[in-house]
Amino acid sequence: MSEALVIGSVALDDVETPHGRATEALGGSACYGSVAASYFVPTSLVAVVGRDFPPEYRKQIENRGIDTTGLQEMDGRTFRWSGYYERNMAAAHTNTTELNVFEHFRPDLTPEQRRKPFVFLANIHPELQVHALRQLDNPQLVALDTMNLWIEVTKKELREAIRSVTLLLMNEDEARQFCETPNLIEAGHALLGMGPRSVVIKKGEHGALVFQKDHYLSIPAFPVRSVKDPTGAGDTFAGSMVGYAARLGTATDENIRRAVVIGSIMASFVVEDFSLKRTLGLQAAEIEGRIGQLQAMMTVPPLDPATFVPHFAPAV
Amino acid sequence: MSEALVIGSVALDDVETPHGRATEALGGSACYGSVAASYFVPTSLVAVVGRDFPPEYRKQIENRGIDTTGLQEMDGRTFRWSGYYERNMAAAHTNTTELNVFEHFRPDLTPEQRRKPFVFLANIHPELQVHALRQLDNPQLVALDTMNLWIEVTKKELREAIRSVTLLLMNEDEARQFCETPNLIEAGHALLGMGPRSVVIKKGEHGALVFQKDHYLSIPAFPVRSVKDPTGAGDTFAGSMVGYAARLGTATDENIRRAVVIGSIMASFVVEDFSLKRTLGLQAAEIEGRIGQLQAMMTVPPLDPATFVPHFAPAV
Repeated sequence: MSEALVIGSVALDDVETPHGRATEALGGSACYGSVAASYFVPTSLVAVVGRDFPPEYRKQIENRGIDTTGLQEMDGRTFRWSGYYERNMAAAHTNTTELNVFEHFRPDLTPEQRRKPFVFLANIHPELQVHALRQLDNPQLVALDTMNLWIEVTKKELREAIRSVTLLLMNEDEARQFCETPNLIEAGHALLGMGPRSVVIKKGEHGALVFQKDHYLSIPAFPVRSVKDPTGAGDTFAGSMVGYAARLGTATDENIRRAVVIGSIMASFVVEDFSLKRTLGLQAAEIEGRIGQLQAMMTVPPLDPATFVPHFAPAV
Repeated sequence: MSEALVIGSVALDDVETPHGRATEALGGSACYGSVAASYFVPTSLVAVVGRDFPPEYRKQIENRGIDTTGLQEMDGRTFRWSGYYERNMAAAHTNTTELNVFEHFRPDLTPEQRRKPFVFLANIHPELQVHALRQLDNPQLVALDTMNLWIEVTKKELREAIRSVTLLLMNEDEARQFCETPNLIEAGHALLGMGPRSVVIKKGEHGALVFQKDHYLSIPAFPVRSVKDPTGAGDTFAGSMVGYAARLGTATDENIRRAVVIGSIMASFVVEDFSLKRTLGLQAAEIEGRIGQLQAMMTVPPLDPATFVPHFAPAV
């Protein structure tokens, strides 16, 4: 068992979905990511909050055993995001984004943090991701997630960050946008060509695609009948992948393919309730149960090759 | 090995996609469906064409070994569809639909056709589907496909047809529309509750979901980097499922889950070129090759349950 380091944002979110709303709820890419990773290995969080950050939220994070030494408190207000989802829950619509303390945040790592072998650079400005990346001391795995905003406004910096990571995660729309192609297979191969050893395209309810030099994998989403709030699903997916790879101890291509199953499962929990309500208190049996179920959903009864032979071959 | 009967439309299509165009090309739901089924079992086609139907098209269908006794020629012009696809190829846009000889078509089956045990009611007016359905003599499997038009204008008739079939296929958007829910898992279960023993929701590039009483399966799409023309993908998917189930000889739930792999593979071929160019001349090795590859894409390295146990359980 190794250890995980998660760098990104901690936020206070106002979210409205067809199933209700949450106000000043705990959120942020690194918060979702570190909580997910914490189920599998000792996890450290590097992020920043303001003076308004509720002590009970810090407590909730620490109750997951997460090392919050790197969760700085700075003068000012915590990063805030306000958004809503329409009936189909397909995409988040942003009302407002207040950077607040994030305007002055630089992820400066301690010597101990620099030596963590499994690192998740959760969604923040790509310059900060590169800044963190450069301080790492021979990591086994660096995973990077991003969002459409950075593809639109800082594509060059994002490209630089992508070049240096081992695992890249993108949403399907982001991958299409970044690679300027409607075809996800083309996009996945293009992203793989930019440097990462594995590329994961997250497709929400449609699961995820994994691209590696010698492997292509399609992972279903665990079927959730009542999605209450999709916020943090991608962060949870990525964070649990990094945590599970750390648990396995080595970031081989094979272990990344194992980890994507865990990513899909952990993401299926977080969407069942608002904020981190569902993933802060998961039971081992719940996780294990869904892993078994997901594997069954991917399992087709054996096919007899004799039945593929065309019964009728035309005279050429 | 049993036999398949495919009832639906044969058409002349004008199609434009970002990769080119086809004019007066062979098309129609039953044409795509029967050609796909013909790889696996002796297949009979019931449809209607006009006096303008090119003899070489009939020849191409017959060259696949398909029994065209039921392909009537009536006075008038063949059913024609003209449409286009935008860059993302996600949905067909219709320019014009000319029913022509289809306005007077009634699928009246011969005694021999009535006894075919595996039947595909390809996309046509649901009243015609019900008319065909009622003539069948104790079929093992009746599969039904439809389209958004019938959901909009003949929902009641469609519901009646659905009640009486064993396998229902719908696109994801059609399933959402018909069941009035954005959630595909909810839609799948709702459709299953209406009567069919298996429901397949086709999701194009995202593969397909299979709903059965005791099983849920997610099948990837075979990854195609260059989709030239998506026309007929759904018909091909369904037709090959029925053909393959017939090849296996019994329509058990397990065989339907096997057949959906074949559906996904056969659909991946037809989109690689316009009209039926690709599926009229497939080689056995091509089909078998993709089946093996698709199975590999669904295969995750084994996960050790000991690694699911949370490393950290909070004090409650």
